[in-house]
Amino acid sequence: MRIVHKLSTCVLAFGVVFAVSAKAPPIMADIIAASKPSDWRPLDPQNTLYMELPTGRVVIELAPAFAPNHAQNIKALVREGYFDGLAVIRSQDNYVAQWGDPSDDEAADKSKVKAIRTAKKTLPAEFTVAISTQIPFTRLPDADGYAPQIGFSNGFASGRDPKSGRAWLCHCYGAVGVGRDNDADSGGGTSLYAVTGHAPRHLDRNITVVGRVMHGMELLSSLPRGTGKMGFYEKPEQMMEIQSVRVAADVPEAQRSNFEVLRTDTATFTALVESRRNRREEWYKVPAGYVELCNVPVIVRKKE
Amino acid sequence: MRIVHKLSTCVLAFGVVFAVSAKAPPIMADIIAASKPSDWRPLDPQNTLYMELPTGRVVIELAPAFAPNHAQNIKALVREGYFDGLAVIRSQDNYVAQWGDPSDDEAADKSKVKAIRTAKKTLPAEFTVAISTQIPFTRLPDADGYAPQIGFSNGFASGRDPKSGRAWLCHCYGAVGVGRDNDADSGGGTSLYAVTGHAPRHLDRNITVVGRVMHGMELLSSLPRGTGKMGFYEKPEQMMEIQSVRVAADVPEAQRSNFEVLRTDTATFTALVESRRNRREEWYKVPAGYVELCNVPVIVRKKE
Repeated sequence: MRIVHKLSTCVLAFGVVFAVSAKAPPIMADIIAASKPSDWRPLDPQNTLYMELPTGRVVIELAPAFAPNHAQNIKALVREGYFDGLAVIRSQDNYVAQWGDPSDDEAADKSKVKAIRTAKKTLPAEFTVAISTQIPFTRLPDADGYAPQIGFSNGFASGRDPKSGRAWLCHCYGAVGVGRDNDADSGGGTSLYAVTGHAPRHLDRNITVVGRVMHGMELLSSLPRGTGKMGFYEKPEQMMEIQSVRVAADVPEAQRSNFEVLRTDTATFTALVESRRNRREEWYKVPAGYVELCNVPVIVRKKE
Repeated sequence: MRIVHKLSTCVLAFGVVFAVSAKAPPIMADIIAASKPSDWRPLDPQNTLYMELPTGRVVIELAPAFAPNHAQNIKALVREGYFDGLAVIRSQDNYVAQWGDPSDDEAADKSKVKAIRTAKKTLPAEFTVAISTQIPFTRLPDADGYAPQIGFSNGFASGRDPKSGRAWLCHCYGAVGVGRDNDADSGGGTSLYAVTGHAPRHLDRNITVVGRVMHGMELLSSLPRGTGKMGFYEKPEQMMEIQSVRVAADVPEAQRSNFEVLRTDTATFTALVESRRNRREEWYKVPAGYVELCNVPVIVRKKE
């Protein structure tokens, strides 16, 4: 079968997990298969959203450590049913899908604009947060040009600047952020977007990132692209309707999607990163010796 | 309008084009608007392919300077009608869409497997080429971890290693490559793929890259994802049919898509790169001071 390989064998240069093995270096799937239950954490039901589309469920985990006020406000919007019946109003190729407030698209059905009852329309920006013990950080061995330090915080790709003492979430594929106007404090969560293309890292520290799509990303990324300016749809009937958005904790247990994500503060994760830096299975002829932050996979699976 | 900006104003630190202007730094669109006809080159009709899908035309430009034998062989395949009636057999989220040889997907209709008449089934790999005057190079001011030098060669993102004396095309969004088996020399062009997600740069120097989608990328990137292993489709009826592939030079002029691409060996391009490194319009609060190779836009427009 003539293919382009995504999963591959690898050499664990760090050797933490498999140092005792005399066998060939394991492939990433073997690293995951050899993981312990403690290498995983369940998605937090109090900070997980289910966005129900006609095509299926998009599962988003919020990161309140990085955007506490926005996470709280988005949950308040969700709990007053703000998003129910609204739509995905924009799909720009190799960039973002955006949903929520119809005011943001000239073509959207303005009769659907909703009053906000208990949540807030706008909030002060949360582009960065202070580095603290609340913000764990597993630094990658490699650097990039967008941040002095890059790595993962509780499963989320993030950057840090020890000089300024600030940390932030990075715009990798699947990152979810808060649309805003020119004023830094003009967003609040009524308009959200997910990255559907090559990581637009220039947005880092310029907009509040609130979390990440953990499952169902393809339901957003495969939407037809909008033909209007910046990928906005030009007719309401082109827009995918949002049936509802719910906080997982508010959904009966039987209807929840019970996912868990590979922890990023473990030896297993360190081995996984190395397996992505140097892929040495037969298919690969030249290992890269490097992995971009946004090419480190966030591993999500159904909880047993 | 609460949005995520893609186009933005910028500061031209290099100051080449607009140094005489006392006005605010121009936005990227203004750099393009101020460009001269000589800043552009038409797509080469002898090395441009039109892949006709039921949803529209995908325009691919081949880069024979980097993969001369594969480019020639793909044109031979096209001219014997090899791809006509075949299909897109794979769409893996955040990775690639792949088309051509049905043998590569267990679910594809094997009755459609085609004999090759004049072209070759396989060719020696062309992962890299010797650095030479045939391979122009505009080096970016920034570095990355995947290649000692990165930049653009005649509009194509590429890497170079002065030590080894080799150059290669990079796997940015839209790059088109040649599927292969474990054997480096097992590809030939019957199976092609385009990058539809975050740049899989670990594939660089591991597979023959032959060109880039210059228009119609969204027709591939918005395809429903295949639900089989590695995004292969599981049923023939899920696959988008390829009506035909033609070399542009073989198509009557009136039916051609006359695109031109911004040259990458000009002061205009240097200014454009800087406008992407530092976006300073009001919307941006923190310029990145950096741009990844695959975030430098390849500007394509209809020729007047």
